Amino acid sequence: MPLMRSWVESANTPETDFPLNNLPCGVFSTPATGLRCGVAIGDQILDVTALEAAGLLKLAESPIFDAPFWNPLMELGPAAWARFRILLLGFLTEGAPVQAQVSEMLVPQSAARMHLPFIVGELTDFYSGRYHAENVSRMFKGKTPMLTPNWAQMPLAYNGRASSVIVSGTGIRRPVGQIKPSGQDRSILSPTRRFDFELELGAVIGQPAEGPISVAQADEMIFGYVLLNDWSARDFQAWEANPMGPFTAKASATTISPWIVMKAALENFRRPAPERHQPLLAYLREPGPIFYDIDLEVALQAEGYPEKVVSRTNSRHLYYASAQQLAHQAISGAPTSVGDLIGSGTISGPDAGSYGSMLELSQGGKEPFEIAPGVTRGFLEDGDSVILRGHARGEGFRIGFGECRGKMLPSAPLPDWARDA
Amino acid sequence: MPLMRSWVESANTPETDFPLNNLPCGVFSTPATGLRCGVAIGDQILDVTALEAAGLLKLAESPIFDAPFWNPLMELGPAAWARFRILLLGFLTEGAPVQAQVSEMLVPQSAARMHLPFIVGELTDFYSGRYHAENVSRMFKGKTPMLTPNWAQMPLAYNGRASSVIVSGTGIRRPVGQIKPSGQDRSILSPTRRFDFELELGAVIGQPAEGPISVAQADEMIFGYVLLNDWSARDFQAWEANPMGPFTAKASATTISPWIVMKAALENFRRPAPERHQPLLAYLREPGPIFYDIDLEVALQAEGYPEKVVSRTNSRHLYYASAQQLAHQAISGAPTSVGDLIGSGTISGPDAGSYGSMLELSQGGKEPFEIAPGVTRGFLEDGDSVILRGHARGEGFRIGFGECRGKMLPSAPLPDWARDA
Repeated sequence: MPLMRSWVESANTPETDFPLNNLPCGVFSTPATGLRCGVAIGDQILDVTALEAAGLLKLAESPIFDAPFWNPLMELGPAAWARFRILLLGFLTEGAPVQAQVSEMLVPQSAARMHLPFIVGELTDFYSGRYHAENVSRMFKGKTPMLTPNWAQMPLAYNGRASSVIVSGTGIRRPVGQIKPSGQDRSILSPTRRFDFELELGAVIGQPAEGPISVAQADEMIFGYVLLNDWSARDFQAWEANPMGPFTAKASATTISPWIVMKAALENFRRPAPERHQPLLAYLREPGPIFYDIDLEVALQAEGYPEKVVSRTNSRHLYYASAQQLAHQAISGAPTSVGDLIGSGTISGPDAGSYGSMLELSQGGKEPFEIAPGVTRGFLEDGDSVILRGHARGEGFRIGFGECRGKMLPSAPLPDWARDA
Repeated sequence: MPLMRSWVESANTPETDFPLNNLPCGVFSTPATGLRCGVAIGDQILDVTALEAAGLLKLAESPIFDAPFWNPLMELGPAAWARFRILLLGFLTEGAPVQAQVSEMLVPQSAARMHLPFIVGELTDFYSGRYHAENVSRMFKGKTPMLTPNWAQMPLAYNGRASSVIVSGTGIRRPVGQIKPSGQDRSILSPTRRFDFELELGAVIGQPAEGPISVAQADEMIFGYVLLNDWSARDFQAWEANPMGPFTAKASATTISPWIVMKAALENFRRPAPERHQPLLAYLREPGPIFYDIDLEVALQAEGYPEKVVSRTNSRHLYYASAQQLAHQAISGAPTSVGDLIGSGTISGPDAGSYGSMLELSQGGKEPFEIAPGVTRGFLEDGDSVILRGHARGEGFRIGFGECRGKMLPSAPLPDWARDA
C-alpha cells in the first residue's frame, strides 16, 4: 500500500509517524481548548471533539467525543470504528471538499499536551516474548535456555494495576520497596537499585465479552495498539516474586504512548505466526496472520546528553499475539471490558543489540554499557529518559505511535515513620 | 459493649447478624424500589436512598445515595462516615422520634435481592494467613513448614481482577482452562477438576492516596470489611503459576458478602498483633491494635442435602492486617483509589477443623471428607454451595456480614473451535 496523500503537507513526508494512512487516537489539551479527543495527522492534531460538535462527525445519537477518552467510540463497535476512519480519511485526503472548514480544527502538536487516551479497565501483562523469556531463563538458570514447560503451551501472564497506567511524558519517581541485600537474611526498605524498562506492545480492547472468545473474535475486539513500557524494579522482583509473582516490582507505573494506532492502520503489516515448538491447543490456534511486523527501538538519554538507541527489535519476536492472549484469559471465565489493556510481554530479539530490557542489555547489571561518551549504565539512574518508538514501514511512509517516553526522577524522601533505626 | 436496642424488634435478638451495633452497607432491589442503597437492621433493610430523598440524611450538597453503590459516601471521608452512622443510630434506636416516618422505609430482607455494594477499583489478594501458608508449604515441600524467607518480612500478594468480583448468591460456572495431566508432557483444555474456595476477609478502601501511607493512615482509610471467597482452580494454578504467579486459576470469580461492615462497627473487636517471627520493618509496624477477633466459618452444601460446617477459624490467624497490606502496596508507588479491595489471604487455623480451603481440608484431594451422610468431597463438585459466615461476638449480640454464598454450576459446553481432536 502506498502513502495516502493529505492536504496537511507534513503528513506526506516519509519521516512522520502520522501519515493519512495512520490516524491514531489521542487525548490532548491546550489552554484554549481544554481536554479534547484528537487524531494525529503530520505535525498536527485534528480536534475530533470540535469536528463532532460542528456536525461533521455523527456516529451515534448522542455525542461520543464530549468526554476526553476514546472508550465511547470503542463501545460502538467495529462497524463504527470503520465508519469513523472512512469519514476522517475523507476529511483529510487531498482534494477534500471540507478542507477549509476542517483546517480550522487543526492544533499543532507542539502546542498541545497529551493525556491518557482511554480509561483503562483491567491491565494484564503477558510474558510472550520468546527471546526475552529465553534470555531471562539463561541468566537465572545457566547457559542453555530452560523455559518452564508451560511457556510454549500457553501465554503466561500476571495481572497488573490499571491505576498505575500513565501517559508518555509523565515522570517516574524511583520506587521504594523491599530489597534483600545479598548475603543478608533481613530485607531493607530502599529506593530500587535495579530499575528497568520493558519494551512492549499493548493491545487496547474495544469490545466487551462474557465467557470464551475464539482467537478470531478476540482479534476483531481489538481497537488498536499502543507502545507500553512496563517499568520494573528487579531487586524488588527478585525478593518478592516467589511464590506469588511480581507485585510491588511492577506497581508504580506502566507508561503508554499517547497515540492508539487503530488496528485498521496496521492491516497491511500482518504476518503469520512464528514457527511453533509444538502445536498449540485448538483454542489458541491462529485463524490467519495475527502477528505484526512493527520495528521497535529503545533510546536512552542521560540528562544533558543526546539520546542513544540501545536496542532495535521487532514485534514479530512475540510467540503469542494479543488476540491469543485475550482468548486465553477469556476462556478461564475472566470478563472482558471495553478499555482492557493487554501488554505483550517484553520484546527482545536474538542478539545483543535487540534486547528489550536493561536486565538483558547489561546482563543483570554485570556488563554496563555506554549510553553517551563516558556514561555507562547497568540499570537506570535518576535523570535518565527511556524513549520507546515503533514503526510499521510502508512504501514511502511509516505508521508510528509517537514516543513512549518516561524520565526517572529521584525517590521522594522517606517519611520518618518509614525509617528503620 | 452491650447490645444497642432498636425499635426494629428483630435487631434485638442474639442470633441476628444485624443488631443496631452493626448497620452494614449494601445495595438491594425489589420490583417496587429498583436499585437502592440500604443498611441492614434485624431482618429488615433501611432504604437509605429513600431516607436521603425524604430530607432526613443530608451528608453533602448533592445527593450521594441516588446511585446504587457506596463509593460516594466513601469519598466524603471518615468524618462523614461517622456522621452517617450517628444519624442512623439516632433513627433506629429505641425511642427515636422519627420512628413512624423511618418505619415506612424498611424493606424485609426476604423480599429484596442483593447486588454488588460498591464499584471495585483495584483488587489485590494477599497471602497473609500464617497457618494457610504453612499448610500449603508443608503439602508441597515436605513435613516441616518451609515458608519462603520473604513471607515473615512483608505481606506477599498478587493483583486480582476487579472485573471478576461478584456478590454473594451469584452462581459460579466451573472454569475451563489448561491442565497438565500428571505423567504427560502436553496440557489439555478442560473444566477444572480441582476447584476450591478460599476463606478471606476483604478490606474496602474508602479514601484515595498517591504515594506512601503509614499503617495508621491506612487504617483510617479503610471504610469497612466484607467476607471474600477467592475461588481457585488448583490444577490451573499448579500448571501456570511458575514463574508469573496465579492467573487463570483465580480469574473467573471472587465472591464477596452483600454487606460491608463499617470499620466503626468492629472497633470493640480490635486485637493486638500476633507474635512476630522477627521484627517488622518500620513502615509495616503496628501503631496499635489493627487486627480483629472475628469468628469465621465455612459450610458446604451438596445439592439436596443440608449444609455442613466444615471449618471454624478466626481472623486473628492473619499475620498481617489489612492496614499493613495497604501500607505495603502504597509504599511502592501504587496509587490508592476509593473502592480498592484488599483480600487478606486465606485464613486457616492450626487444626484440621479450622482450614480455609479444600486444598488443606482434603490434603490436596487425597483425603476426601464427608459433607453429608455418604457424600464425600476432595474438591468442589457441580451443585455444591460454599457459604462463608463471620461474626464478631459481643455481649448478647453479634456483628455479622450476612452470608457469602456461591453455588457451583457446570461448565458451559466448549465451543467447537476450542475442541482438540
